[in-house]
Amino acid sequence: MIDNKAFYKLSYGLYIVSSISDGKLNAQIANSVFQITSDPAMVAVSINKQNLTHEYIQKSKLIGVSALSVETPMDQVARFGFRSGRDTDKFEGISYKLGESGVPIIEDTAASYFELQVEKEVDVFTHTIFICKVLNAELLKDVDSMTYQYYQDIKRGKISKTPVSQNENKTEPIKLSKDTPKYKCTVCGYIYDPSVGDPDAGILPGTLFEDIPDNWFCPICGVTKDSFEKMV
Amino acid sequence: MIDNKAFYKLSYGLYIVSSISDGKLNAQIANSVFQITSDPAMVAVSINKQNLTHEYIQKSKLIGVSALSVETPMDQVARFGFRSGRDTDKFEGISYKLGESGVPIIEDTAASYFELQVEKEVDVFTHTIFICKVLNAELLKDVDSMTYQYYQDIKRGKISKTPVSQNENKTEPIKLSKDTPKYKCTVCGYIYDPSVGDPDAGILPGTLFEDIPDNWFCPICGVTKDSFEKMV
Repeated sequence: MIDNKAFYKLSYGLYIVSSISDGKLNAQIANSVFQITSDPAMVAVSINKQNLTHEYIQKSKLIGVSALSVETPMDQVARFGFRSGRDTDKFEGISYKLGESGVPIIEDTAASYFELQVEKEVDVFTHTIFICKVLNAELLKDVDSMTYQYYQDIKRGKISKTPVSQNENKTEPIKLSKDTPKYKCTVCGYIYDPSVGDPDAGILPGTLFEDIPDNWFCPICGVTKDSFEKMV
Repeated sequence: MIDNKAFYKLSYGLYIVSSISDGKLNAQIANSVFQITSDPAMVAVSINKQNLTHEYIQKSKLIGVSALSVETPMDQVARFGFRSGRDTDKFEGISYKLGESGVPIIEDTAASYFELQVEKEVDVFTHTIFICKVLNAELLKDVDSMTYQYYQDIKRGKISKTPVSQNENKTEPIKLSKDTPKYKCTVCGYIYDPSVGDPDAGILPGTLFEDIPDNWFCPICGVTKDSFEKMV
């Protein structure tokens, strides 16, 4: 018996994983980045095969990892989180640097970053685990890392990132019945609350789950609407 | 350039990873457990080749993962953390159950657990990444997971798990000069503070780093003393 709720108790960080290919840049949010060995320093990164970043990594064998700090603004997460770089240039208008290997690094909001060279690829159904040698690693600022849990707590309003201001009242939820159902992502546990919406992705508060466009992705793990289940 | 401090910004959970071999049980603390795919449900676990648990996993192809909750007592972490099961029976006197596959599960302190079957092994220098099919997964209690960061904060006294009592004064640190150096694990960032010691491993407060036996392990990541560097 597999209870999906068991998986919510695995802990992750939140990272912007980037790559390059033929001079083009792309990046996405990922939570599966972890050190495997220390001597030599090797890091593993797991990426969904459907993502454009995956395609770039397979071509260039290069990965940039920006480990997000708790100071990362939520709209930064949204920018890189699961809108495809096929449709938009995710780097337009934001500050980044190119590392020595050429991969983009989001310095402003990262606590540390890594430049990685892929040495081995492990095919696991929908994902590839890239086993990488660390080319460069730098601590940018000594602040706590953004964990997946922390991000979810903010999204769900368990942690208030900024005090509620007059301005926020302007986006006060459209009145919904208290019986309006929430939907939970069966992969990562993210809860879509219609009274909150997903403003980062242009889904306004008051939007019923049924009315979200089909090309919407889970803001945390990137799966599509059909991986959500109604909460009872 | 590789700055080891960059690695401290990667986030992990804390898990008891167990296995069986010829009816014998063993388990250890690990922090590299992560879901790779959801359909089918696949989980990866990275284990140091020197560990007895690694040997058992290679033989039986079975892994138990107990995802520790924040309510886990520190001595539970210590029991499983990097004392070798070659020398002691880690399960003696504690409560556990055997899962359907036969692997031991530490129900009392886990928020959830998994039974895994190894489908692929990836050799990465000192470690093996076991890519596993999920046989069983169960949520035990809906409390927050113990993260590696949380555990370190407790160890370093940044979070107080229990109020300081009269009794604790009995283990008041031996007077040390304020210049007595601390040592930092270059792999995981754990700081050995002589005024705190590592009582879980029998290292009393007041013990100089130099006086710790050579068979002592980093209580978090399991490396030996020679992976520590003096802090200046």
